[in-house]
Amino acid sequence: MLHAVVMAGGSGTRFWPASRADRPKQLLALAADEPLLRVTVDRVLPLVPAERVWVVTTAATAEATRALLGDLPPDHVLAEPAGRDTAACVAYAAKVLLGRDPDAHCLVFPADHVIPDGDRFRSAMAAGAAVVERRGGLLTFGIAPTRPETGYGYLAVGDRLAVESGWPLHRLARFVEKPDLATARAYLAAGGYLWNSGMFAWRAAELLAEVRRQLPLLADGVEAIGAALGGPDERRVLDEVYPTLPRTSVDFGIMESAERCWTIPVDFGWSDVGSWPALVEVLAADSSGNVGRGRRLALDVKDSVLIGERVLVAAIGVRDLVVVATPDAVLVAAKGEAQRVKEVVDALRERGWDELL
Amino acid sequence: MLHAVVMAGGSGTRFWPASRADRPKQLLALAADEPLLRVTVDRVLPLVPAERVWVVTTAATAEATRALLGDLPPDHVLAEPAGRDTAACVAYAAKVLLGRDPDAHCLVFPADHVIPDGDRFRSAMAAGAAVVERRGGLLTFGIAPTRPETGYGYLAVGDRLAVESGWPLHRLARFVEKPDLATARAYLAAGGYLWNSGMFAWRAAELLAEVRRQLPLLADGVEAIGAALGGPDERRVLDEVYPTLPRTSVDFGIMESAERCWTIPVDFGWSDVGSWPALVEVLAADSSGNVGRGRRLALDVKDSVLIGERVLVAAIGVRDLVVVATPDAVLVAAKGEAQRVKEVVDALRERGWDELL
Repeated sequence: MLHAVVMAGGSGTRFWPASRADRPKQLLALAADEPLLRVTVDRVLPLVPAERVWVVTTAATAEATRALLGDLPPDHVLAEPAGRDTAACVAYAAKVLLGRDPDAHCLVFPADHVIPDGDRFRSAMAAGAAVVERRGGLLTFGIAPTRPETGYGYLAVGDRLAVESGWPLHRLARFVEKPDLATARAYLAAGGYLWNSGMFAWRAAELLAEVRRQLPLLADGVEAIGAALGGPDERRVLDEVYPTLPRTSVDFGIMESAERCWTIPVDFGWSDVGSWPALVEVLAADSSGNVGRGRRLALDVKDSVLIGERVLVAAIGVRDLVVVATPDAVLVAAKGEAQRVKEVVDALRERGWDELL
Repeated sequence: MLHAVVMAGGSGTRFWPASRADRPKQLLALAADEPLLRVTVDRVLPLVPAERVWVVTTAATAEATRALLGDLPPDHVLAEPAGRDTAACVAYAAKVLLGRDPDAHCLVFPADHVIPDGDRFRSAMAAGAAVVERRGGLLTFGIAPTRPETGYGYLAVGDRLAVESGWPLHRLARFVEKPDLATARAYLAAGGYLWNSGMFAWRAAELLAEVRRQLPLLADGVEAIGAALGGPDERRVLDEVYPTLPRTSVDFGIMESAERCWTIPVDFGWSDVGSWPALVEVLAADSSGNVGRGRRLALDVKDSVLIGERVLVAAIGVRDLVVVATPDAVLVAAKGEAQRVKEVVDALRERGWDELL
């Protein structure tokens, strides 16, 4: 059966002060009235019913996640005792799925991306699911690039193998780390490169077989966790073993050296909304180029992002600014420097102002 | 006996969002840890004891004012039922004082100015009090100008009459409305002009005699209020009559045409802190030219004003900016446009967002 696994383990300091330790990016209503995670789950529900949707999140947010996703079985929200990167996350999820459904195949994707066209998304996901069900292998969805972005990793596309429900299926040639601008431009000009979106499809058993082949320590750990699933020691074993799992990504830890690896280039609108200024990609700008959420008043303001969370934001005579206001903390940043919000979070931690983290 | 009358009737939209209808500028801790009004009263206490200090404020803030000034007799906080400008304010106060002390003379000054050197302030006030006690007349204190400021009215200084305790006493030639920059520069170059600070000294009986001579309707109104003072109808008469008093300033309504009018030029540090950017005059700047209050983090920020009221302000890569954060509203303004905060307040009123006013 087809399952969906939503990776919701992010801590998301890039969206401080809206995001906090107990309210990471996926729980924020950044692009719509609902939190990103809720929108992400709703997007897949017409394809995969709630009783086969799973969410992997952190212990700190498991309760809030279950509250947000009341339509899912509560034990479908898996809480990682510690963040161990995506290879551990998907292997753990695959093990849990196999315990319920020996023939499970699954779609895996992040909780915090914005994809406005749900129909096109589901069409691509259904095609990917059909490929791995019939052909096996590990499949990654790549986003057709629209600009020489240096903030993403890329996929190099190999031979075209088939067309599945209108979507071309290619071999995956290799993963490429985030390029510099010249290289990104060359990729865009040459064609044959996709943005690495972090969305995958595979049969759970095959994923675990690849983990066993490439990452035996991860396989052992997941085996131990799996043996305790549903028993009285489940929690204890998970808490003991999970934090010791090898820390690596699906991309480089598993897929890059997997024996049969595919990619489907997808062309639906997509944003990973990686920073406050990225909201300009997903929110409609007014005639002055401003985007925002919440109550706000702008006098002679241009090309700015104004976000008020239960706080009115009034701005006068500014441009290219990011303002994010919450009841106990406010960020004001030049748009080009908003990614430095991580330094602010570090400084808060250093000063012991933990109530703002 | 010498009394002090503190005019605390301002509504102060210029300090939104820190100032609100029930929390005007004088109740804000803008320049120190205590509200401006508290600092103003403390400044005069070594010269005039609490039992002879009076505060005229608005009905909306009377309770908060009494709470802030617990050392004053509660009935020394006079609440104007409506704002009728400074002539009505000082006439009302003079009437109340005369009811207690037929020989009252008084110092009158605003609640919301910053004067760091209390000793020098009291020395000048004592000199002014001595002048009006012995010589009579209405006296205004003028600030020696330090820049061609176009935001203040000016006093033209007349003949020098005497020196009182080291302070020169001059006739007051005339009041001058806020000049343009060229005129302000000419004043500064010519000398003989002072900033109109709104600080006065007079005998209460003489002030009322001038009111009777120049503003008979105001005199009649204050007479009616005075007749009811201490009686069962005091509140009713005040509420009925006060809102009908003529609306004019001390400067132009009384002093400009008064028969005997003096000025003492004072040279202590003074700021009326008329706007957020004016805080740079009264708060110590850090090495990047920033001033502020409350918890804040600044990364590559220059020449900015950062104010957090129970809200952390984090700023990155900005300059010449004013940021004022409260738990329910935030102002972000280019420094040169911060005076347009009044437009924000007007817009809030228009939209009916009264809880933010």
